[in-house]
Amino acid sequence: MKPSKADILAATERIASFIHHTPVLQSHIINDLVGANLYFKCENFQRAGAFKMRGATNAILSLKEKAFQNGVATHSSGNHAAALSLAAKDLGVKAFIVMPDNSSKVKIEAVKKYGGQITFCEATVKGREEMLETIITSTNAIEIHPYNNPYIIAGQATAAKELLDEVKSLDFIIAPVGGGGLLSGTALSAYYFSPTTTVIAAEPINADDTYRSFKSGKIESVSPKQTIADGLRTSLGTITFPIIMDHVSGILTVSEESIIEAMRLIWTRMKIIVEPSSAVPLAAILSNKEMFKNKKIGIIISGGNVDIDHLPW
Amino acid sequence: MKPSKADILAATERIASFIHHTPVLQSHIINDLVGANLYFKCENFQRAGAFKMRGATNAILSLKEKAFQNGVATHSSGNHAAALSLAAKDLGVKAFIVMPDNSSKVKIEAVKKYGGQITFCEATVKGREEMLETIITSTNAIEIHPYNNPYIIAGQATAAKELLDEVKSLDFIIAPVGGGGLLSGTALSAYYFSPTTTVIAAEPINADDTYRSFKSGKIESVSPKQTIADGLRTSLGTITFPIIMDHVSGILTVSEESIIEAMRLIWTRMKIIVEPSSAVPLAAILSNKEMFKNKKIGIIISGGNVDIDHLPW
Repeated sequence: MKPSKADILAATERIASFIHHTPVLQSHIINDLVGANLYFKCENFQRAGAFKMRGATNAILSLKEKAFQNGVATHSSGNHAAALSLAAKDLGVKAFIVMPDNSSKVKIEAVKKYGGQITFCEATVKGREEMLETIITSTNAIEIHPYNNPYIIAGQATAAKELLDEVKSLDFIIAPVGGGGLLSGTALSAYYFSPTTTVIAAEPINADDTYRSFKSGKIESVSPKQTIADGLRTSLGTITFPIIMDHVSGILTVSEESIIEAMRLIWTRMKIIVEPSSAVPLAAILSNKEMFKNKKIGIIISGGNVDIDHLPW
Repeated sequence: MKPSKADILAATERIASFIHHTPVLQSHIINDLVGANLYFKCENFQRAGAFKMRGATNAILSLKEKAFQNGVATHSSGNHAAALSLAAKDLGVKAFIVMPDNSSKVKIEAVKKYGGQITFCEATVKGREEMLETIITSTNAIEIHPYNNPYIIAGQATAAKELLDEVKSLDFIIAPVGGGGLLSGTALSAYYFSPTTTVIAAEPINADDTYRSFKSGKIESVSPKQTIADGLRTSLGTITFPIIMDHVSGILTVSEESIIEAMRLIWTRMKIIVEPSSAVPLAAILSNKEMFKNKKIGIIISGGNVDIDHLPW
């Protein structure tokens, strides 16, 4: 189930006309501050505002016949819901989205804007899964899981591939980790296309299940603690976890304060809008400056979907 | 005193290694919304966060001997103060900055960070001018006016020149107007390098002095009203005004509400941080859609210096 080099190359071509080739930005001020050379791959400028558009598009195009017949379905309260809706809309496919009834207005509106058909459910794992089952039974739509799906992983891998094509000889790539779709794709792209690049994951201390899974060797569940990087409160999957065990070198955990500090730094110095999850890798560098001193580091900025009426400062 | 084509070409070369060649961005969503093709020249990504860096650098390099001997001086509470400080620091020149004693903490810190030597004064025009006079008498520094200076105008003109080099056959360029440094430079670049492009200014109704000056044929003063686009509460200068009269085709005024709406649109759709003044041109387009329908329009995004702890929503 692990995507091959050919799978990632095929995904890159398959999705090219449906996604933005996002820019890689640098900030002299932030480089001076951390004493390293940082390259930010700006998926906040991606369509639907996050890297999720890559995986969603690749999955629908790969499952073409099934998806085109009866549509696609998922349960998600976040960026995957919006991305799957927009990718489906691009391709003239129906998207059935199960969302918890406590989802934020901004996220509900994003899905509606892209034409996703929303069914609300109870805000529990059981509530989501049962409602998705019901929807799939009645529509015959095909489920596109947000991360535990090889087509999704191959799609997310294309972001790191673009970064590695543009910036040669990176010492590190750091990606945030929730369910591991972005991280496992990033790790595979480094493994296939730039084997000397070390891949590190960053996650909030308050959602340190990847750190614990990495140590214990089995998938650990997320603690009930809250984190501002709400997109990262997800456990690893049976497909993403083994890839991470094989190809990721370490997991750094960061405090809530350092995430907010890193997010403010990106906003005020780079003048770009990133969501809290995207600031987690920079927070990890700021908290471990010695480890990264004078290194050439790629950072995946995962997305820019923030409710600007409710900022964390 | 009007900069020539050669002056702008010389400025472009002179400042090239000290400024960023900023990107031109587009947004499909905003294009669909306004029914036109917009090209945003992103001076919010400029060094010191605004186009002002261009003029300040060009002025110091043009007045080289005088400036290098005794330093440069200005009174400013805004982006010009920070830009002049940073440009002076780049070149190893002293910068004496007179700032009103009610300047915001963020702006004072920016000047300090770039090594500007601040003297505070009473927050009146008279207080500023008298203190600047005192400083110049004691230091022999040379005054660099924020806009009424041909070197400043030639420097600001380079932003529109870069835009016109990158995007051919623009129907319009729209720039915000305060003292007219950016606007007069933009108008000259269009006149010299793309004579079929019509230049339009946009300003807040609450600071409509350019609109009134344009109609009356003489420099009118700013009304005491407040506007969120505080960088635009400045009267035209004796050098900028005649250039604007000769080379600008019209002035559009916009409400405070439409400025905030346009600013939110840029933040949420383009994921970039722009200051309120930068949103004024898009507000003008949103308020005059018929006039701009299906046109190819350049917009100068003037800067991105916003206090993210005090947003207008």
